[in-house]
Amino acid sequence: MDRRSFLRTSALGGSAAAATALAAPAYAQGKRTLTMVSTWGRGLAGVHDSAQYCADTITALTGGDLTVELKAAGELVGAFEVFDAVSAGQADMYHAVDYYFLGQHPALSFFSQVPFGMTFQEFNNWYYQDGGMALADELYSIFGLKSFAAGSTGPQSGGWFNKEINGPEDFQGLKFRMPGQGGQVLGKLGASVQNLPGAEVYQALSSGAIDGTEWIGPWADEKAGFQEITKTYYTAGFHEPGPILTLNLNLDVYESLTPAQQAVVEQTARASNIWTMSLFMANNSAALQRLQAGGVKVLEFPDSVWDAFGAAAKEVIEAPMDDEFYKKCYDSYMASMTRSASWISRSEGAYSNQRNRVYGM
Amino acid sequence: MDRRSFLRTSALGGSAAAATALAAPAYAQGKRTLTMVSTWGRGLAGVHDSAQYCADTITALTGGDLTVELKAAGELVGAFEVFDAVSAGQADMYHAVDYYFLGQHPALSFFSQVPFGMTFQEFNNWYYQDGGMALADELYSIFGLKSFAAGSTGPQSGGWFNKEINGPEDFQGLKFRMPGQGGQVLGKLGASVQNLPGAEVYQALSSGAIDGTEWIGPWADEKAGFQEITKTYYTAGFHEPGPILTLNLNLDVYESLTPAQQAVVEQTARASNIWTMSLFMANNSAALQRLQAGGVKVLEFPDSVWDAFGAAAKEVIEAPMDDEFYKKCYDSYMASMTRSASWISRSEGAYSNQRNRVYGM
Repeated sequence: MDRRSFLRTSALGGSAAAATALAAPAYAQGKRTLTMVSTWGRGLAGVHDSAQYCADTITALTGGDLTVELKAAGELVGAFEVFDAVSAGQADMYHAVDYYFLGQHPALSFFSQVPFGMTFQEFNNWYYQDGGMALADELYSIFGLKSFAAGSTGPQSGGWFNKEINGPEDFQGLKFRMPGQGGQVLGKLGASVQNLPGAEVYQALSSGAIDGTEWIGPWADEKAGFQEITKTYYTAGFHEPGPILTLNLNLDVYESLTPAQQAVVEQTARASNIWTMSLFMANNSAALQRLQAGGVKVLEFPDSVWDAFGAAAKEVIEAPMDDEFYKKCYDSYMASMTRSASWISRSEGAYSNQRNRVYGM
Repeated sequence: MDRRSFLRTSALGGSAAAATALAAPAYAQGKRTLTMVSTWGRGLAGVHDSAQYCADTITALTGGDLTVELKAAGELVGAFEVFDAVSAGQADMYHAVDYYFLGQHPALSFFSQVPFGMTFQEFNNWYYQDGGMALADELYSIFGLKSFAAGSTGPQSGGWFNKEINGPEDFQGLKFRMPGQGGQVLGKLGASVQNLPGAEVYQALSSGAIDGTEWIGPWADEKAGFQEITKTYYTAGFHEPGPILTLNLNLDVYESLTPAQQAVVEQTARASNIWTMSLFMANNSAALQRLQAGGVKVLEFPDSVWDAFGAAAKEVIEAPMDDEFYKKCYDSYMASMTRSASWISRSEGAYSNQRNRVYGM
């Protein structure tokens, strides 16, 4: 099916649903309990905290008129069933990172993570001020969803290796754990990419079944205990420089809310966006300090490796360009990223480099 | 008066005020109109927009139960009278950047801007997750205020010069417009620092009465028209790498709100924090592109100048260290900044440098 015509039909469907909701105002009055599902288990620090923050904040701001009950992964539906469940109205909203659902639409990468793409601040510039939100509305309405950016884990680490990486040829035959589009990129460099469930990664690295793994960042990586196996850690990675978590509502449910309740959901997501990012960044900062104190060597990939990452990432992210809506997102995203990068590198970037040099940070 | 004992007394005063408010619950019911004053004229794009965003969002999220009326600078009280006015209960809240009020307490710099200090993200790490908010509560309660970070202009530009700056000696005798602590730093480099009102800066630079000026960033600088006078622009500056705007309420007023209304104010400030930052960053990014297309040369100060900035900034920010509460803030702020800087430079910073190099951004 042509996605453009699907889009048009779906937009009409959305309006019809809105009209129904408006015709039943009684539904919008009084107290309601809404169910949030998520892709996160209760043990997943940071991301589960972000979902809980959203649930608790909506409940608090409405004085309980909307009470949001969070069901972690597996409690109502499985982690990877949340998109379908909310789209179909089986649950009212979900909290996730939408690159899990690229099979639904490749353009979901722009609202979760593009390898070699935007950092968190660059994404916010695009999303809130430079066309991103309108494109998100267009995309998610195809699936009967209303989406709000609601957090980030911050830049994810390049990962843990059993040897130093001195050139792109060192990825040839390397057994490395990296899921998703990042893994596709490493595959183009000749790596043997593994997509292991989280619970199996430590054992696989420990036994030598894999030569290396990325995970999240120092906070989560330290909890996983990879520093017990190897001390070779690349903190900067190409694959997830600023992943975006989203809070997505069933569109009919969203449209049945009062204007004040809709505003509460939207502003809660914004608050969660900044709060979650600071949660990860502060904890990553403290954990990196501990890892370094424990003898972990923090390295940076050489330029030749970044060149190879960049060329392979370009191939991966340009593959779906024959999809017209994907291309529209791509053009908007890339133009905005170029503008943001130019200003940020010449202001905050240059400042930070100099301050860190002068103060020896 | 010893500020610690003042602090203790004032904290007791705060509790007493809270008890009074609790004893009069009727006051917290029904619809209320609250007055917000600000340091911004209505013409000041970005900062006035941020104040308006806070006012409109609180009104929207409470469905009008709290209606916030924004009085711009001069409409109820003068720009620099807002701190006293809200502290005294003459208005309910204000929106400003609190380095205007360093005369009230030098530690207000940590919640507005420290020269050579934190970027926006580093501040958020400290404020939300690493002790900053508790210190803010301690500080502002002295003045009967409850404070929330509510936005940033992003990093401010180094400024416009009538010549290139090749070493710190080039500041000797340079007539330069820079207010506040940044100006004190330049004074230590031998500059003749001018503190002109905004409306007079263009004419002064144009006539040669001053040799250079900083203003805000490309968006505001372009509107001011400095590119018509000189093409020599330093985008990275030491003086305001991430200034924080605050939304501050009279503490008694804050404590008279219902828990849901208090939560609305707090989360609105967080939403405004991320929204305002993206507003400035997106507009600065687009304006820098236009300025460069118009022939403006974007330069970076050489290392020797940054060394001099750093040494002089250290003197300025360490001057109030005999104040015990200032020192407590300083220690917490610096430790957190060091942690954040280490992680950010090794993750997002290293990534951005490489991506910009590989993709030629």
